[in-house]
Amino acid sequence: MTGRVYLVGAGPGAPDLLTLRAARLLEQADIVFHDALVHPDTVALAREAVRVGVGKRRGEPSADQPGINRALVEAASRHARVVRLKGGDPGVFGRVHEEIAALEAAGIPWEIVPGVTSALAAAADLGIPLTRRGVARSLVLVTPASAAGSARPDWAASVLHADTAAIYMGAGEAGRIAAALLSRGLAPATPVALVEDASLPGSRVRRGTLAGLHRLAAGRGRAPAIILIGRVLEGSVSAEDVAALLPPQIVTAG
Amino acid sequence: MTGRVYLVGAGPGAPDLLTLRAARLLEQADIVFHDALVHPDTVALAREAVRVGVGKRRGEPSADQPGINRALVEAASRHARVVRLKGGDPGVFGRVHEEIAALEAAGIPWEIVPGVTSALAAAADLGIPLTRRGVARSLVLVTPASAAGSARPDWAASVLHADTAAIYMGAGEAGRIAAALLSRGLAPATPVALVEDASLPGSRVRRGTLAGLHRLAAGRGRAPAIILIGRVLEGSVSAEDVAALLPPQIVTAG
Repeated sequence: MTGRVYLVGAGPGAPDLLTLRAARLLEQADIVFHDALVHPDTVALAREAVRVGVGKRRGEPSADQPGINRALVEAASRHARVVRLKGGDPGVFGRVHEEIAALEAAGIPWEIVPGVTSALAAAADLGIPLTRRGVARSLVLVTPASAAGSARPDWAASVLHADTAAIYMGAGEAGRIAAALLSRGLAPATPVALVEDASLPGSRVRRGTLAGLHRLAAGRGRAPAIILIGRVLEGSVSAEDVAALLPPQIVTAG
Repeated sequence: MTGRVYLVGAGPGAPDLLTLRAARLLEQADIVFHDALVHPDTVALAREAVRVGVGKRRGEPSADQPGINRALVEAASRHARVVRLKGGDPGVFGRVHEEIAALEAAGIPWEIVPGVTSALAAAADLGIPLTRRGVARSLVLVTPASAAGSARPDWAASVLHADTAAIYMGAGEAGRIAAALLSRGLAPATPVALVEDASLPGSRVRRGTLAGLHRLAAGRGRAPAIILIGRVLEGSVSAEDVAALLPPQIVTAG
C-alpha cells in the first residue's frame, strides 16, 4: 500500500491554537512523527496512532534529518494516514522541504496543513498587531540561525527594510543580532520585545529597546523565544521593563 | 456590565483552518461581528449569538471603521462575550489596532486570538514551504495597498531585501507592483505565483515569472488573492502555466 503523508502545523504552543483540520487528522492518524516542542496534549489527540517523537526542535538542526525522511517514507508503505507534526507552520522554518523531496522521490502523496506561526502568537500575547495602518505595512519573519543555510546570508537587510521584524531562533544570539542591526544603522531606541513560550500559560513577555536586547535575552530561560522589532511596539513600558533595561549596577544603586 | 471582546482570527478561508480556541469562542459568543470574507460555515458556529456582518473585506478600507469601533464598545456594555471575527490573523493587515484603541479608551477588556494567515495557506496550496534551508531564511508579508497608510511607503524595499515575499491585497495592482520591483532591479525571471481563494476548494494557483505577473493577474477572478515571489517557487512549471505566460497572440498562433 501507499499511504498519504500530512505535513501538519501544530501551531505556536497552546494546544487549542491547533486547527480543526489538524485535530481531525491526528484523531484519524495511524502513525504520528512529532517534534520535541509540540505540546503533549496535542500529540495525545492521536489516540489511535503509533506516536514517535523525533526529537527535533523547531527549525533547529537535527542529527538525523535523513533518518526522519526515511521513517516517513517507510511509514507510508505500511500505514494509510501518516502525520508529520511540526511546531508552528510547517512552511516557516520547519525544514519541510527536505521531507517533501524524500516523499516525492518515493512517489508518496503528501500535503501541507498550515498552522499559526509563532510570531503571530507572540504578538497576541503582547496585545499588539504586527502591522498597523500608517505605521507598518510589512512584517518580515526571519532567522539568523546558521542552520538555515547561507545561500543569501544577509538576514539583517531584511530586518532593516521591513517595518516590523519577527526573529525566530535568535534569542541565543541576541547580542550578535543587536550588534549587527545597530552597526547597520538601526536606531538604539528601536522598540523590541522578547516573548518566551508564546501562547502558553507560562508565556513571558519582556519589552525594551534594541540597545538593551542582549540584557532582555540574558534574563530568559530555555524556552523557545521570538524577538519582535519595530515601531508597532511603541507604547507604555512597565516599571519592570525599565528595570530590565538598566545596567545591573544602576538597579542596585537605586 | 462590561463584557470581554475577543479579536479572533478566522484563518485563511477553509472553515477547518479555524483554531480550536476560535471555534470554542464562537460557540460561546453572545454576539459576533464578522468581516464579509469569513466563510459562512465559520460564522454559523456561533449558534447562540447575534451575528452581525460588518461588510468589511480583509484589510481593505471600510466606510465605517468608526462605526465598527462604536458597535464593539456598545456590545460589550450589554453582552459578556463579544467576538470580532476577522479573516486570517487579526494582527496581519486586519486593522485591529483601531478597534483595540477604541476598547482601551472605553476600559473594555480584550484579547487577540491568532489565526493562520493567508500567505501560509497559499503556500500549502502550492505545496511549497516559504522558507527553505540554503535558499530562503526570510519571508516578508507586505501590502502596497494605499489603505495601509503611508508612514513608510517603501514596500518594494522590503520585498527586494527578503528571500521570499507574500503580497497581500496587491492582485488588483499587479502591473504596478511588477513594474516597481523590476525598476528596482529584481530579475524578470524571478519566480512568482498567484493564489486565489487560498485553502478553499476552488483555490486557483497560477505560476510564472515576475515579468509575466500582470498577465497572471489579468486572468484572475474577484476572489482575494496572494502574490508570492521568490526562489522557493522555482521548480517545474506546468504547460498550463507556460500558456498563461505567453502573450495571447502566440498562444493563438500555436
